[in-house]
Amino acid sequence: MSSPTTPDVEPFDAVDVIRTKRDGGAVAEDALRWMVDAYTREYVADSQMAAFAMAVLLNGMTRDEIRVMTDAMIASGERMSFAGLGKTTVDKHSTGGVGDKITLPLAPLVAAFGVAVPQLSGRGLGHTGGTLDKLESIPGWRAALSNDEMFAQLRDVGAVICAAGSGLAPADKRLYALRDVTGTVEAIPLIASSIMSKKIAEGTDSLVLDVKFGSGAFMRDVDRARELARTMVALGTDSGVATTALLTDMNTPLGLAIGNANEVRESVEVLAGGGPADVVELTVALAREMLALAGQPDADVEAALTDGRAMDAWRRMIRAQDGDPDAPLPAPRETHTVVADREGVVTALEALPFGVAAWRLGAGRARAQDPVIHAAGIDLHVKPGDRVAPGQPVFTLLADDEHRFARALDALDGAWTIGDEAPARSPLVRERITA
Amino acid sequence: MSSPTTPDVEPFDAVDVIRTKRDGGAVAEDALRWMVDAYTREYVADSQMAAFAMAVLLNGMTRDEIRVMTDAMIASGERMSFAGLGKTTVDKHSTGGVGDKITLPLAPLVAAFGVAVPQLSGRGLGHTGGTLDKLESIPGWRAALSNDEMFAQLRDVGAVICAAGSGLAPADKRLYALRDVTGTVEAIPLIASSIMSKKIAEGTDSLVLDVKFGSGAFMRDVDRARELARTMVALGTDSGVATTALLTDMNTPLGLAIGNANEVRESVEVLAGGGPADVVELTVALAREMLALAGQPDADVEAALTDGRAMDAWRRMIRAQDGDPDAPLPAPRETHTVVADREGVVTALEALPFGVAAWRLGAGRARAQDPVIHAAGIDLHVKPGDRVAPGQPVFTLLADDEHRFARALDALDGAWTIGDEAPARSPLVRERITA
Repeated sequence: MSSPTTPDVEPFDAVDVIRTKRDGGAVAEDALRWMVDAYTREYVADSQMAAFAMAVLLNGMTRDEIRVMTDAMIASGERMSFAGLGKTTVDKHSTGGVGDKITLPLAPLVAAFGVAVPQLSGRGLGHTGGTLDKLESIPGWRAALSNDEMFAQLRDVGAVICAAGSGLAPADKRLYALRDVTGTVEAIPLIASSIMSKKIAEGTDSLVLDVKFGSGAFMRDVDRARELARTMVALGTDSGVATTALLTDMNTPLGLAIGNANEVRESVEVLAGGGPADVVELTVALAREMLALAGQPDADVEAALTDGRAMDAWRRMIRAQDGDPDAPLPAPRETHTVVADREGVVTALEALPFGVAAWRLGAGRARAQDPVIHAAGIDLHVKPGDRVAPGQPVFTLLADDEHRFARALDALDGAWTIGDEAPARSPLVRERITA
Repeated sequence: MSSPTTPDVEPFDAVDVIRTKRDGGAVAEDALRWMVDAYTREYVADSQMAAFAMAVLLNGMTRDEIRVMTDAMIASGERMSFAGLGKTTVDKHSTGGVGDKITLPLAPLVAAFGVAVPQLSGRGLGHTGGTLDKLESIPGWRAALSNDEMFAQLRDVGAVICAAGSGLAPADKRLYALRDVTGTVEAIPLIASSIMSKKIAEGTDSLVLDVKFGSGAFMRDVDRARELARTMVALGTDSGVATTALLTDMNTPLGLAIGNANEVRESVEVLAGGGPADVVELTVALAREMLALAGQPDADVEAALTDGRAMDAWRRMIRAQDGDPDAPLPAPRETHTVVADREGVVTALEALPFGVAAWRLGAGRARAQDPVIHAAGIDLHVKPGDRVAPGQPVFTLLADDEHRFARALDALDGAWTIGDEAPARSPLVRERITA
């Protein structure tokens, strides 16, 4: 049995906090703040926070508890401010998917309208890629900026995609790593507080969330994705950040490129007025939401993609971070193309196995310290609904080492199907959630 | 997201095992065995086992999972055998309560009938006392015996109460310490597998369980105590250990002594044919169950308490472990007596606060490495149902330092009541559970 007294120096007891949540209760504000703070100080052990996280996953948290949890994680680190910028700031966050390069065309597109877009991004782990990994395909480009550099670039260029400093919500960093190894990633209150603590600490004026559902997303299920989106919109709103969310379909990879360098190439195609229809559709939809929050609900977003304004912003953004937008991107040493064995129509391309296959080809990392191979990944040649003839290429694997193909093909076994009838089309943007 | 591959050297992944239990599934036998083994090897981290334990607490385990869990914990260490003893062995286990000194008179009482009683006991932590702590009040007595010493004493004396060696179910030792700090002590599958793994590994022929319910027990609720008892009886039976359980009331402290030296004194009173009625009743009830399992269902247990046979066995047992049964027991330096402020009848003495108060007086320990103060504790002068007059002593606090009285009295605020009508009497032994 645990001690019936509390230690002299600490006002709360971790076991009491865990038991409250375990037994379905709501943890009092001061106790929950203490729990996060004491975990950051390493007074509360990983094992205690893991038991608490599992209890949260299974028993949930009230809206008030989620707000306090988020606030406590913000309080664990520094808060930034873009108040002196003289522009309104709009951030965007995606819960992650396969082929999700949307940040790359989106940030310069929105910045082309005079709005500041600070994108503090991460690296990939597992089957979902990381925005910084993709951009590092560009020779010379650097992810690490000082706060002063970031501020100057927001002022002069408008768009910044860079690494989040370690100062924002350090409690979240520790908790996220713990959740990853304890089967507690999927807890909606913890996902919401993790994402929103960093966005609120960053100090953006407004925020658009791309909350994905489907086989390639955290949330397989649209109902859980909706719950997550509503939770985050409420959190942002309660904290004075104007927040909107789109629920978007992640059953099929976005676009035709899955990897790093090939996703940059596809993003540049979109910025040049071309690119796959789904990438354009989602980029435009998110840009409209961001510009609406920035006070420009009638901005002609498509025009900025076709008339070169978004491309100009992209080139300035890449150059400001020492990248060469005209340099050739890394090319794979080995390729392996899979062709259709029959005539018909592509009925499915499952996002998760294509994500796993690209990861196995070297596009992603198994451990945080591993490098990624920028040229590795998968180029799709068709999408669901496209007709194919026997022998027609369906997709091409890209790698630096042909030994990687076998395990990637294992992952893809059964992941794509050719049938006789075109699949029902479901909308890419399923729902819009506002405060 | 966790890695979609499994490591090369380990056949299972802890996150998969945690997720299965988290999502309400049953963990496959080989995966559960691996989880316990890998935790013992420290490949599975405390944080992972803590998340798993919380999922078990909230989602339960099947009878089959509990059997596998128990078996895996047995397999983590050595197995003992009393096969060469030439006597049948009967063990008893109590889930712990306040004033529960029953092992002390019970082991020699049963041994007086020619049965071997191996009592591998523990130390107290929190408000429930430890049998070894109590016996260590006796000058010279030592808890640590080698397996050979234990075997010889069982053969020659019949009763042994000693410390469990570290070789039995080491996985349980690590898991128990983890559960204590992560709010997962109360999981019935984990309590059952913890207790039964040690009893089965010990190699006893049969076992009587004293499963307590009420305010001073692990299980407040009689229904949960019954579930625990049934789970353990099934586990013992499945493993070839004849097992019976009694459900007993732990809302009121057992007997009049709560502490260490004073509980030894009270045990000796029972062995001399006296002692409080409830201690005698429970000692006799458990002795009957043990002797029935040992093939002596008609043994005259009461006679052995009054004719000195049980006392003789006690004296031999204490001497065999270098204790002096005639030496004076430690006495407290300070005492504080609380008296009745009105005339009436004692309607309640709540076990938990009296346990906590005794613990705060120094009878128990907050951390495993702390010493206990053998003379500390509480002597009750009355029990529920007794009439009192104003100024009549209700209980006396015993300590080595008068500064401890205030916090003990805090714990006792509201813990005892005097009213006008005698409380309803509830039976001490509520139910008997057999295979």
